[in-house]
Amino acid sequence: MRMPRRSARHILDDSYALAYPALRSAVEEFPEAIQHPVGVHFGWWDRAGNALRSNPGKSLRSALVILSCQALGGSIRQALPAALAVEMVHNASLLHDDIIDNDRLRRGRASLWSAMGVPAAILAGDALFFGSLHALTGAPHADRTVPVFLAAVQNLIEGEYVDTLMEKDTTATLDDALDMIAGKTAELLSCACTLGAILSGAEDERVQHLSRFGLLLGVAFQCTDDVLGIWGDPEATGKPARSDLRSRKLSVPIALALNENGPPAERLRALYRREAPPTEAESRVIADELERHGVRGAVVDLARENAGEALAALHSCDPDPVTSEELAELTKMILQRSS
Amino acid sequence: MRMPRRSARHILDDSYALAYPALRSAVEEFPEAIQHPVGVHFGWWDRAGNALRSNPGKSLRSALVILSCQALGGSIRQALPAALAVEMVHNASLLHDDIIDNDRLRRGRASLWSAMGVPAAILAGDALFFGSLHALTGAPHADRTVPVFLAAVQNLIEGEYVDTLMEKDTTATLDDALDMIAGKTAELLSCACTLGAILSGAEDERVQHLSRFGLLLGVAFQCTDDVLGIWGDPEATGKPARSDLRSRKLSVPIALALNENGPPAERLRALYRREAPPTEAESRVIADELERHGVRGAVVDLARENAGEALAALHSCDPDPVTSEELAELTKMILQRSS
Repeated sequence: MRMPRRSARHILDDSYALAYPALRSAVEEFPEAIQHPVGVHFGWWDRAGNALRSNPGKSLRSALVILSCQALGGSIRQALPAALAVEMVHNASLLHDDIIDNDRLRRGRASLWSAMGVPAAILAGDALFFGSLHALTGAPHADRTVPVFLAAVQNLIEGEYVDTLMEKDTTATLDDALDMIAGKTAELLSCACTLGAILSGAEDERVQHLSRFGLLLGVAFQCTDDVLGIWGDPEATGKPARSDLRSRKLSVPIALALNENGPPAERLRALYRREAPPTEAESRVIADELERHGVRGAVVDLARENAGEALAALHSCDPDPVTSEELAELTKMILQRSS
Repeated sequence: MRMPRRSARHILDDSYALAYPALRSAVEEFPEAIQHPVGVHFGWWDRAGNALRSNPGKSLRSALVILSCQALGGSIRQALPAALAVEMVHNASLLHDDIIDNDRLRRGRASLWSAMGVPAAILAGDALFFGSLHALTGAPHADRTVPVFLAAVQNLIEGEYVDTLMEKDTTATLDDALDMIAGKTAELLSCACTLGAILSGAEDERVQHLSRFGLLLGVAFQCTDDVLGIWGDPEATGKPARSDLRSRKLSVPIALALNENGPPAERLRALYRREAPPTEAESRVIADELERHGVRGAVVDLARENAGEALAALHSCDPDPVTSEELAELTKMILQRSS
């Protein structure tokens, strides 16, 4: 018997409450010294080792694993090893990404490399990468889950690498940007759904519909993330205002704008090509100009289209109706972030 | 039928010739963009993508996998997936280690981070980590090999982390240093032998003798490496003279010396504690002083003892006699590096 439908916030809180105790137990089986920086990253203790009151977190990726498993008739217990694996690999990639992007803030705290140095952050990420495999290889259906997981993570790494190559690249097309975010973000969300579906024991065809749901949801998610990267409220995002413009990321709105004609696109190209990064004032002018020219609206529309197709894929797998409504709630929440 | 006994050099050349074409094929299955920095690391092409004439390499870890498999009656073909996995994980850890240790040189070339930047080196390492799992999870006996491999790699990461914590630590004991090198080096050599042995299809007891052989050989290997880190010829090591002293690594000879009494130990402690690193002249004085006080000799003896115990463990597994002689050749070569 499934519970009545929960709000998106409630679903994310619940999935955190389910996945994080398991995650903590898994980390406590790591060799002793490396547990310390890993726990500092998760906010379980401070650098001196003092326990911190764990802030109630949210966890989209483990929610997707659990709901995808439930959607096809599986249980939370069946889904947990994959929820764990996906959370670990996501956090490993955050640890390495923050070094790569030189980001000093993560979840409103100092990122691990800025708190404890690059070596600790590289190695804590490596430990989480291998921990994720440990969670998955010891669980049922490993012959089906592990190849999916390894391929998704290789695509995630590829997406991050392409992301670094594309920084300041003014020749990239919208398709280049969409390919890159598919690898960087959507593959792991798709993987989360696929693993949950496999662990339910469902047949391949139903699993594939959920894979497609996750991939399209991931594109929608990254589009809204890219909108927040330019027009997001620093209070809500925990990042500096217009951070993607300041660091000249090649995000979806930027790729859209670079492929336009006219003076705003020219100004943007000039700014992305020059040596010095945009000033605070320049980035505000560009953000406003892009919004006036409809770029923000176009990316929000793109997110909406992908979310719509995601829900169509979801319905094709003949999901449990309550779970399906909850996945639709999460989809709606993702769209609302940027509107 | 086994071939007649080969020299250590010949064994290492052969294992490179066997493992590296397989490694190159495996890397060619990585997503496209990330293949580039991985191939630059291996010296297959330059940064512009021009093919380089591959320098004939040596490969101790894949040699240990292959010989351990053959020692228990297995074939080269059976051993290859593990040879591949171990080479990949070793190179992944070199890529991350060179960032951590700020090493600009690797195999006489620019290390990847210094040639292509930290992001490329982090992500190329991550890709090789996941590639190693791909090689192993798709091969026979994955239920036995994967847990051994994951545990060894977690210990490797732990060893590297402890290594960073111990830098400039003048309170570490010899046992601390030996624990650290067990994790950092010996675990992976032991893992190489264990995986080769498992892939031969042998029973657990014989496998365990080879695990122990690899672990003890790894301790001997690191002891000789630590001797070279202080007294090695830069021509032969490809590293600056006395590099471990200059960077104030806590190596085995240093741990030995720090736990002595008397003026040389005091001078060493003072030098390890102060802010500025030792000058060229100071490091030469210390190296000479430690040698006169028998520290170099003591570490060479330690290497020899561990190598002797390693060979005893090897003989306990009732190995194929020709292969056993070849493993003894490799052991002898490791000892000769530092004498």
